[in-house]
Amino acid sequence: MTTPWEQRYAQRTQRMGSSAIRELLKLTEQPDIISFGGGLPAPELFPVDEFKIAADRVLTKHGKKALQYSTTEGYRPLREFIVQKICRYGIEAAPENVVITSGSQQALDLIGKILINPGDRLLTERPTYLGALQAWQSYQAEFITVPIDEDGLQTDLLEEALCSGPKFMYILPNFQNPGGVTLNADRRRELLQMADRYGTPIIEDDPYGELRYEGDHLRPLVVQDANRPNHDPKSSGGGFLSGNVIYLSTFSKTLAPGLRLGWIVAPVSVIQRCVMAKQGMDLHSSTFIQMVSHEVAKDGFLEEHVREIREVYRHRRDVMLSSMERHFPPSVRWIRPQGGLFLWAVMPEHIDAARVLEKAVENKVAFVPGTAFYPDGGGQNTMRLNFSNAKPEQIEVGIERLGQVLTDILEDEKKHELVLA
Amino acid sequence: MTTPWEQRYAQRTQRMGSSAIRELLKLTEQPDIISFGGGLPAPELFPVDEFKIAADRVLTKHGKKALQYSTTEGYRPLREFIVQKICRYGIEAAPENVVITSGSQQALDLIGKILINPGDRLLTERPTYLGALQAWQSYQAEFITVPIDEDGLQTDLLEEALCSGPKFMYILPNFQNPGGVTLNADRRRELLQMADRYGTPIIEDDPYGELRYEGDHLRPLVVQDANRPNHDPKSSGGGFLSGNVIYLSTFSKTLAPGLRLGWIVAPVSVIQRCVMAKQGMDLHSSTFIQMVSHEVAKDGFLEEHVREIREVYRHRRDVMLSSMERHFPPSVRWIRPQGGLFLWAVMPEHIDAARVLEKAVENKVAFVPGTAFYPDGGGQNTMRLNFSNAKPEQIEVGIERLGQVLTDILEDEKKHELVLA
Repeated sequence: MTTPWEQRYAQRTQRMGSSAIRELLKLTEQPDIISFGGGLPAPELFPVDEFKIAADRVLTKHGKKALQYSTTEGYRPLREFIVQKICRYGIEAAPENVVITSGSQQALDLIGKILINPGDRLLTERPTYLGALQAWQSYQAEFITVPIDEDGLQTDLLEEALCSGPKFMYILPNFQNPGGVTLNADRRRELLQMADRYGTPIIEDDPYGELRYEGDHLRPLVVQDANRPNHDPKSSGGGFLSGNVIYLSTFSKTLAPGLRLGWIVAPVSVIQRCVMAKQGMDLHSSTFIQMVSHEVAKDGFLEEHVREIREVYRHRRDVMLSSMERHFPPSVRWIRPQGGLFLWAVMPEHIDAARVLEKAVENKVAFVPGTAFYPDGGGQNTMRLNFSNAKPEQIEVGIERLGQVLTDILEDEKKHELVLA
Repeated sequence: MTTPWEQRYAQRTQRMGSSAIRELLKLTEQPDIISFGGGLPAPELFPVDEFKIAADRVLTKHGKKALQYSTTEGYRPLREFIVQKICRYGIEAAPENVVITSGSQQALDLIGKILINPGDRLLTERPTYLGALQAWQSYQAEFITVPIDEDGLQTDLLEEALCSGPKFMYILPNFQNPGGVTLNADRRRELLQMADRYGTPIIEDDPYGELRYEGDHLRPLVVQDANRPNHDPKSSGGGFLSGNVIYLSTFSKTLAPGLRLGWIVAPVSVIQRCVMAKQGMDLHSSTFIQMVSHEVAKDGFLEEHVREIREVYRHRRDVMLSSMERHFPPSVRWIRPQGGLFLWAVMPEHIDAARVLEKAVENKVAFVPGTAFYPDGGGQNTMRLNFSNAKPEQIEVGIERLGQVLTDILEDEKKHELVLA
């Protein structure tokens, strides 16, 4: 089974994480399983007809351009659209502050390429997004973690971690993946002060920010950072983005993930670095996809569409929460997410989520065991549940099945303890 | 103008090449310049109507699937299509031997990620494809080069280079970019023998192989390698690809570059590595683009379309060659390419192509100075001319202009020499 390539793999690939997401996506493909495993949006909400019209229009009007090579930074009208879009959240950027990426995942890879030297320490939340760990492990990064609670990153534990000199912090402030939690306003302020004091910049990853189902919108870190007292707007070179925060987002949770379109918003000098690196990575993201997505999104459609998604996902979240109340054993705890796609559940400490998953799959329901989201171990008794993909009826059935599995396992444990006692 | 990011860039990005291709693409955007600079296909040949029909059909039949996340290895019917397609050239692969990439450029980046450690030596042709250099410089590779002549890589000079222990060789056997030359049959054999003897595997990059305008098709290295005497087909784990050669190709020169679709054909174990790495890079290539491209390409359309492209490009090549005969000074030499997109011209040694380009742009014509294609310096007196993008009338006008620039510069030089004499 060996080829001449086997002895030649790069050291960095020795440390690449196993393909947990991929294996999970495979699981969800079995048609009789109700899966809360992936992070998949609801396909019935995809604006298929709008894409049909847009593809036809783009090819009719600009077919030659849409199929030709284009510039690495991305289709300018799309960058202008993104600038307008994020302006509503207070992010004052110019098109020169934006590079289009092939999904948020490429944004993470790009950041790894331009910033990470082997052995660099990165500060992440614990737990954190698996895709970021996968991207950055390939650059031989080390991870320092700070735990989250229901108000997001525990900023009172941040200072000690910053003392070990991380190159940057990676923060998902809204409806975090996997924890579902949101960084509250006080902690946002503390985080930015600390970033400033220790000179440790922040990657703010915000794929879900628009999907808020209750409560007030909180200002992005990048906006608050721009207003800090010793910030010098002149140092930007374009827009007011000169500071400690690089902002990432994507169309994957609002328009469609199959497009593979995301973006980085950063100071011009950082964008130039990104563009140089992206040139060697894929030259540019698909011209056709960029033009069609812009055609669909523009003129208010995306906003209106996101309103519809919010309604549907809020309902699914509520159905999942109330099903959990009814069917989960009382010793399992969870946090009510104010938005996003995920619910995070914590079982009693001695329960192994991998074992629960085995039983769950036998009973035709799936989730992601939390350990994959812990770069330095732990979380064996945790699980991530996605509520955006399955329909409400399925959520009820799936949670009932999972509740039964959990009840059975916990009762078994109790019997076992009694025998031992 | 500094941001906190400035002091944090990775060492590898210090060595990233300047954005030569991008700067050139920008030049070509000036409407009054006739550019032979880029490697752009002829946009008037893009099958725009077929894409319109295909996009509509894919969205009508499989809209939800087309816009959803999909597996990292790529859309299976597209991988099956590629397997059938390359089978015509004698490459006996299975879908498990194929991973879809976001253009050939991503294939190069992927290969860098799974194979290159900092300081690794790679053997390339001299000159070679700039995009490969850009991709691999970011992994801190060193380059050992072996010159090409009109029959491709000078295999008689290969052994010495192999003694310095390169990790792999990077070879463009057909209508090389930038040289336009094709590796002849004898040298293909010698190259493979040498690869086997020194245990140095080969990356065979074949974006242009189907665009042959004269002469006989030569067997790909990957096919010849499979037939070498001490090759063990059992060691493959799928298909007969177990050997010294990884094969890359793309839709960029046959269907359209704006799609960003390429592929790697390799032993199953290598593909698994690639899939793991690609997961961290962009999760997967756009589902929609893969499905639409498959819909366009299938049922014989791509073959038929490539026949049309061949006719058009053959004519453009011939127009360029005959214009050069008429307008270029006799001291400028070039090789007649049997296919592909590029002509390579060599000026007298003391002429600097960068200076010629300056004058050329003043006279509204552009090309790429050859130096960018030399990883270890040299080639100051060379230029790459693309003949696929401009129309025949433009090629005539552009070559006449360039011939005049060259004649003027050479006459100036002569006068200067007389004065000095």
